[in-house]
Amino acid sequence: MIKKRLLIVSGTHGNEINPIWAVDKFKKLIGFNCKDRNLEFILGNPEAYKRGLRYIDIDLNRSFNVNKTSINQNLYEIERAEYLLRNFGIKGSQPCHIAIDLHTTTSSMGTSIVMYGRRKKDLCLAAILQNKFGLPIYLHEKDQKQTGFLVESWPSGLVIEIGPVAQNHYDSKIVEKFIMILLYLNDFVKAFKNSEINLPEDVNVFVHQKSIDYPRDTNSRINALIHPERINKDWKILKKGDPLFLDMYDKSIVYDGSELVYPVFIGEAAYREKRIAMSFTKKETIKCSEDWIEEI
Amino acid sequence: MIKKRLLIVSGTHGNEINPIWAVDKFKKLIGFNCKDRNLEFILGNPEAYKRGLRYIDIDLNRSFNVNKTSINQNLYEIERAEYLLRNFGIKGSQPCHIAIDLHTTTSSMGTSIVMYGRRKKDLCLAAILQNKFGLPIYLHEKDQKQTGFLVESWPSGLVIEIGPVAQNHYDSKIVEKFIMILLYLNDFVKAFKNSEINLPEDVNVFVHQKSIDYPRDTNSRINALIHPERINKDWKILKKGDPLFLDMYDKSIVYDGSELVYPVFIGEAAYREKRIAMSFTKKETIKCSEDWIEEI
Repeated sequence: MIKKRLLIVSGTHGNEINPIWAVDKFKKLIGFNCKDRNLEFILGNPEAYKRGLRYIDIDLNRSFNVNKTSINQNLYEIERAEYLLRNFGIKGSQPCHIAIDLHTTTSSMGTSIVMYGRRKKDLCLAAILQNKFGLPIYLHEKDQKQTGFLVESWPSGLVIEIGPVAQNHYDSKIVEKFIMILLYLNDFVKAFKNSEINLPEDVNVFVHQKSIDYPRDTNSRINALIHPERINKDWKILKKGDPLFLDMYDKSIVYDGSELVYPVFIGEAAYREKRIAMSFTKKETIKCSEDWIEEI
Repeated sequence: MIKKRLLIVSGTHGNEINPIWAVDKFKKLIGFNCKDRNLEFILGNPEAYKRGLRYIDIDLNRSFNVNKTSINQNLYEIERAEYLLRNFGIKGSQPCHIAIDLHTTTSSMGTSIVMYGRRKKDLCLAAILQNKFGLPIYLHEKDQKQTGFLVESWPSGLVIEIGPVAQNHYDSKIVEKFIMILLYLNDFVKAFKNSEINLPEDVNVFVHQKSIDYPRDTNSRINALIHPERINKDWKILKKGDPLFLDMYDKSIVYDGSELVYPVFIGEAAYREKRIAMSFTKKETIKCSEDWIEEI
């Protein structure tokens, strides 16, 4: 039997409210009480949630590897990341082994998994979820510009990312999608035995290559939007000559790379401030390995 | 010839960014220059836009009838409303006669018109737009709880409301819808003669009856969401027994009114703080009158 404690985090971004609702509903659905030592729930960024914001000072989900200085030490999210680790980190007072961080996106990603790097434990869990639900996996790695994600600070962890849904907008269909995953994970930590895990042959991942910004004018102002033929086409192949952006004069800006890529997080509202219009990925099939199971 | 100056306002809510983009694109499209005395453009809430927020202190689009007191006089939006009137109000330094205020909603409203009360000038313009584009009209009236809308402070004015689109999320399809309306309005103020206006027989409006809040628990926390069968069903008939909300135990809360109503702004993200889950309207057909034309 897997004796692992699962930490479910919602509201790491305070304006992604459907996961928060989903967790509340899920707890009622399973009749959760605090004596259940397999599960732990925490609202990631309660202050931002109260104020309907993604974050107060800085993005909490980029704050788990920040070197504290006299300048940043009082930032709310820096303190919050420490609080979460102090309480629920593997060396915390109520240690959890696996972190599942629930997010929404304004992009048309559907229900997907985001994983960071190729930890065996993560690959195992992602493969199981993909095998069960057919979810696409965005494997985020080798991105120097974006680091410090929450789940990376736990021995194992994945992001469940569902969209499209507006920030601060409830959508019970999105809620139901989270609950489906949560119910499965609950069974998984409660009842599964290592010996009962049947890994699929392969796991298919979309591997991060790079992010691209919107076209900008000489004053750094965005001067073209996602092309109507590209918006809402997350996970769909992009090849040389395909339209990417449309400028104010209705001129198309096309993809001029020679490699086939699969864009994700197309037009995500919260990423504009990070100068990301979309991220390019490449498909890769990873052969599943039995030794991933030992690691869980 | 109509010698009226048209004020186009975008970004009255700073996180509704598609209208701002649409206006920039529209100005390029028509080769606008400041000598064009028919048109005036203004970004309603530039500070909120800079910060990606709906507003800084209070909702600008409820701030045009506020009695100034020592408490509220320094609020950004109170000052901004005064600024807009001082400059572009009918008694302002660059007076405009008609205000068109461009908004987006997270609700599935499609392209629609919102008008406030039954001013002849507004009815005339709304009828013309409905006749041209087939747009539904939400006639907001008799709502003591919501007042102080921008366009009410001009002799004539309408809101163009387009959705669904997330706040702070660009969507060039939404942009194109605004531009289509702007192009028509531009022709309208430039070239139309009163004698050439052909009003339709009737104008069909959805008249505001009341707004309803989400169900809440004893701590005033929302405890049910818009029902999956009702979400995205703006403008669609609601009759006794139809599901409205779904609580955490999957219990449906149904509409128990006896009157047929047509809900709008269903689940609009920005209205939760106003305790509005949706607004009920009733259909009404108003016979168009030739004397509306004189008024423009």
